[in-house]
Amino acid sequence: MGGNKALVLVSRPAGMLSVDNFNVVDIDVPTPEDGQILVRANYASLDPGIRKTLAETNTYWVPTPLGAALTSNIVGKVIESRHPVCNGGDLVAGSGQLQQYSTFAPGPMCWKLNPDSKLPISTGLGILGATGLTAYFGLLAVGDPKPGETVLVSGAAGAVGSAVGQIAKIKGCRAVGIAGGPEKTLRLVEEFGFDAAIDYRGKSREELQAEIAAACPAGVDVYFDNVGGIQLDAALANMNWKGRIPVCGLISEYNLTGAPDPMVNLFSIVGKTLRVEGFLAFTYAEQFPEALRELEQWVLEGRLAYREHIEEGVEAAPSVFVKLFTGQNDGKTLVHIAD
Amino acid sequence: MGGNKALVLVSRPAGMLSVDNFNVVDIDVPTPEDGQILVRANYASLDPGIRKTLAETNTYWVPTPLGAALTSNIVGKVIESRHPVCNGGDLVAGSGQLQQYSTFAPGPMCWKLNPDSKLPISTGLGILGATGLTAYFGLLAVGDPKPGETVLVSGAAGAVGSAVGQIAKIKGCRAVGIAGGPEKTLRLVEEFGFDAAIDYRGKSREELQAEIAAACPAGVDVYFDNVGGIQLDAALANMNWKGRIPVCGLISEYNLTGAPDPMVNLFSIVGKTLRVEGFLAFTYAEQFPEALRELEQWVLEGRLAYREHIEEGVEAAPSVFVKLFTGQNDGKTLVHIAD
Repeated sequence: MGGNKALVLVSRPAGMLSVDNFNVVDIDVPTPEDGQILVRANYASLDPGIRKTLAETNTYWVPTPLGAALTSNIVGKVIESRHPVCNGGDLVAGSGQLQQYSTFAPGPMCWKLNPDSKLPISTGLGILGATGLTAYFGLLAVGDPKPGETVLVSGAAGAVGSAVGQIAKIKGCRAVGIAGGPEKTLRLVEEFGFDAAIDYRGKSREELQAEIAAACPAGVDVYFDNVGGIQLDAALANMNWKGRIPVCGLISEYNLTGAPDPMVNLFSIVGKTLRVEGFLAFTYAEQFPEALRELEQWVLEGRLAYREHIEEGVEAAPSVFVKLFTGQNDGKTLVHIAD
Repeated sequence: MGGNKALVLVSRPAGMLSVDNFNVVDIDVPTPEDGQILVRANYASLDPGIRKTLAETNTYWVPTPLGAALTSNIVGKVIESRHPVCNGGDLVAGSGQLQQYSTFAPGPMCWKLNPDSKLPISTGLGILGATGLTAYFGLLAVGDPKPGETVLVSGAAGAVGSAVGQIAKIKGCRAVGIAGGPEKTLRLVEEFGFDAAIDYRGKSREELQAEIAAACPAGVDVYFDNVGGIQLDAALANMNWKGRIPVCGLISEYNLTGAPDPMVNLFSIVGKTLRVEGFLAFTYAEQFPEALRELEQWVLEGRLAYREHIEEGVEAAPSVFVKLFTGQNDGKTLVHIAD
């Protein structure tokens, strides 16, 4: 049969992943069961968290079997619906596989796009999708920033981080970002409106700690962490009393083969009564419509800029995925699969 | 003048502290200022957290200057009051110095004992003081355990940990404790009513992880952490979705000279959307009266057992303090100063 081009895992990466861990193969188009919809993907997204599903075992998510398609968020059109809330032709976003055709069960992991949106449907994976929702709920529901507070963000030039900084500004906070290299740090200030930016490259824990202190003279009230490692440890030392740390990801650890660096500032959690809280956007699914309305409004008002890095076809996915971990990607990373 | 025997810091401990870091000297009795009370101590408590104030610098608490008396919680009688809420003769508990006479300003760090309490006043430092309140608010306000959930506690044979396990049982949870050595683990089950106990001594991170999994077949919903280090890391791997980790202390780190062990399971915070939250009991001061009433009732009903380890005089404090970190102490550690 075939007819469904898919990106499959052919070997498990040991340490930094490589394009050789993947292959593009032609598999069968899945058949939706009762309660499912069949979706033809327009775009698929490549996110750092996918790396966690490539290990043979992990205690968090279902590992991807060898020979199976990779987990990916998809936006696409409903081809066949066996679920009452969707009809053929609806546009949906959901957590599926990186392939041309996926089946979903509508619910917290798969929702309809707003058909009246004025933005391109690729944004259903980015600023109006998992990215924007992750920034929105992680910062606002978990971080709970008050006007005048200081919000520090790691991975700040990335799709989530750049949105976090801009939403912090919209909410009246001082926004400080950490990113890698002069081009990205300049972009934080000039394109995304951060108040200050820190280049983490080549810096020790102590140097990062001092640079954060200099960029955050009133201390840090919310540290939105995408990175973990010594950036998290340096941030802990700069947190204010009752500070909040929404933990979105720990990208610094995903390709490690050895142990991560020790954390020397964990006692800040006690001494400053910090709250360190992991979150996943889909747990806020009931609030998605209101959040998406607000995110789109901010984009249309010119207060929330975003970048997309789009490459063509399922075939491009392996090299694009590797770039995510070498800092060569630029904004929300997507592959275009069909119009 | 003199007349006020005090335990002072004579040298800063490098690594494990020793009795030589301290001296007992005779200093002046302090004079209360407006808004303060002068208290003659009956008992002073030795808590692991005091260790954090002995370093030359720390980003959390005020360091103890060389030659100054150690920070300590005190229960005692008001000798002179220049504050409207206290009168001479009142019994109070407060955060003062380890000396015969201290001055306090009544407030969140110094409160009146219930004059109608049926328990000895030494409990104003223990089960009806900072210890009991730390267990109570850390478990109930931060950990938020539901009946039927599993509560894991480290440092479980200690004063706070043993209270946490018993309060967990009172609230209908499964209580599992981690402690050092066969005597203490036996005591957890036989004296304090834990459902299971784990001896951490000589165990690797992986062995601890497996023992926690075996003792908590339904996973861990609340991990009350007094210890940090590989016990925390092993617990992280066993947490359930949306688990809570009240962080009370990190005693495994307090005497370290090198870096702590790396944490390899921090990603659980994201993958299982955990909340890791530091706390200090005094931030709940407005709720102390109700909490103390409930704690005393549980003690009188025989549902909340406690141990006190009392030694005689300020002179005993250095050796007692060292024992806290070698696991030789037995229950809430106090020195008796006056009747």
